[in-house]
Amino acid sequence: MGTINRQIIVNKFTTPEKGVSVREQDYKDPKPNELIIRTGYCPINPADLNVIEGKYGKLPELPAVIGNEGSGQVIAVGNECEHFKEGDHILFVNRQDCWQEFVAATPDQIIKLPDLLPLKLSSMLKVNPATAWLLLNQDIKIESHDWVVQNASNSGVGVAVIQLAKSLGIKTMNFVRRETCKDKLLSLGADAVFTDDESGKIEATKLIKNEKIKLPLAINAVGGESALRIMSLLSEGGTHITYGAMSKRPLKIPNSFLIFKNLSIRGLWLSHWLKNENKANIEEVYQDLAQKMLDGKLEQPIDSIHRLEELEDAIKRSTQEGRNGKVLLKFKS
Amino acid sequence: MGTINRQIIVNKFTTPEKGVSVREQDYKDPKPNELIIRTGYCPINPADLNVIEGKYGKLPELPAVIGNEGSGQVIAVGNECEHFKEGDHILFVNRQDCWQEFVAATPDQIIKLPDLLPLKLSSMLKVNPATAWLLLNQDIKIESHDWVVQNASNSGVGVAVIQLAKSLGIKTMNFVRRETCKDKLLSLGADAVFTDDESGKIEATKLIKNEKIKLPLAINAVGGESALRIMSLLSEGGTHITYGAMSKRPLKIPNSFLIFKNLSIRGLWLSHWLKNENKANIEEVYQDLAQKMLDGKLEQPIDSIHRLEELEDAIKRSTQEGRNGKVLLKFKS
Repeated sequence: MGTINRQIIVNKFTTPEKGVSVREQDYKDPKPNELIIRTGYCPINPADLNVIEGKYGKLPELPAVIGNEGSGQVIAVGNECEHFKEGDHILFVNRQDCWQEFVAATPDQIIKLPDLLPLKLSSMLKVNPATAWLLLNQDIKIESHDWVVQNASNSGVGVAVIQLAKSLGIKTMNFVRRETCKDKLLSLGADAVFTDDESGKIEATKLIKNEKIKLPLAINAVGGESALRIMSLLSEGGTHITYGAMSKRPLKIPNSFLIFKNLSIRGLWLSHWLKNENKANIEEVYQDLAQKMLDGKLEQPIDSIHRLEELEDAIKRSTQEGRNGKVLLKFKS
Repeated sequence: MGTINRQIIVNKFTTPEKGVSVREQDYKDPKPNELIIRTGYCPINPADLNVIEGKYGKLPELPAVIGNEGSGQVIAVGNECEHFKEGDHILFVNRQDCWQEFVAATPDQIIKLPDLLPLKLSSMLKVNPATAWLLLNQDIKIESHDWVVQNASNSGVGVAVIQLAKSLGIKTMNFVRRETCKDKLLSLGADAVFTDDESGKIEATKLIKNEKIKLPLAINAVGGESALRIMSLLSEGGTHITYGAMSKRPLKIPNSFLIFKNLSIRGLWLSHWLKNENKANIEEVYQDLAQKMLDGKLEQPIDSIHRLEELEDAIKRSTQEGRNGKVLLKFKS
């Protein structure tokens, strides 16, 4: 095509604001087992920022194109790639270098999505909605009318948990740092929202007692005191799952919670699932989530959209508190 | 029988040394659905001391006869109690008031053991060997040649874990506070013994690396730094089970252990199992453990044996570090 590929790269693990730059590479035609995807949008996730800082569970060798999530459209098809055609809507599920204009991908690294789903929305499908889906689909017995409790409820995963739980008939008790998020979460279907502090915990404890609520699952993305707070609300035999660590503080667990209250403490990392689960099952989950997005039953709020020329601003915005959703990088012209 | 029943009671939750006294009650003949057991021996367990202190998961209303474990012989049989006769050897599995000379028990509260097993040994069967058995029989995939790691390896449960693991072809890596315990544990079948500090952890880490050891299970009775130490040695996806909290310090868990290393943190309380498991399964486990004791494959070391006249000394000794096994109370004359 005689064009160039703009890529966002990390040269050195450092602070997010300083850690990335744009480089230009030659565009290459696809090999027989490859498709060329023109990237539409990519969200900036905490995991991406952690990679730039060199503090993630899996790190690339530098210099590296990074970016854990995004979607786009097929613009060229290698002659061994059946079932794909130009224009197909594509989600990257198994690439950690999505932040580039053109991606040469093999079919096992992507999933085909409904054409009608806007690229902006599909770009946010891989990480947050799937993490929320996984959190609610562990081997934990949750009856309808049971509740789940979570912190960081205003995060991308948090709002997806609220919406997916609602579709399953499960109620959600939500903790947020900012009082101002409450109405938004209630409008998305949250059943109760409290501030993530001791006064919020006291209110939640009252509600649990008055309504005789059963809470078999606590979902934690914060760590530290906040993690302990939602752990203390769990019913006997309940499970506490950590998928993030915004506070960067370790979990503290009273021994009696393990021995007498019989709680289980676990973690969840989407990458484990994507690596170990059967591809057909992964496809099925994403098709279901894509349909829910298309039907307006699974919103992922967008804070702002930035072109590559505004990369620095985009990264900066993504590290700020008080955002109203995801910060997206726009690759397509 | 015209005799009296000497019982050890708690009047007030307080320190172990001050918390118990002996009272004398009238002996009563059995009701039709009762057997009278003459208690032989009862060990003093940490759980008993915690009850005296008022710091256990389940506390009796005071004043109360206490004592979680013991064994004895049937001396009178209510006429509705089939399958039992005078002289039968009995383990209390569902009584929290074993510290008395005569116990009026219903058949669901006891298990009949082989007559040949000495009362001294059977008195230590309910808690430690069964806890060790449960720890090794959770839904955790442990292949033969895999290892398990534990702290407090010189405790009653610790030595039972070593012996039961050996009989299953599982190897044990053991941490102890006192260097002097090492030879004893090796002679019981321990595969490696380290001191429970940073230098011990470094040695253990070397062994794991050199021998490419897989460690799917860590068994914790201490809490705090010691719990974290054995947690850090686990293989990816491993499970850490807490059944005791000798240090009285909470667990501290790095978020990365949950998210990236996919560890599960759980607890185990024998009382849960005894309450919720089918009685036939419970009987089967105890028969198997009793047979292993009889065959000399499951030793529980005894530190000292005290008559009721020496109750104060017995309690004091049971709270001291550096014991060489259990402190037993002797009830039979």
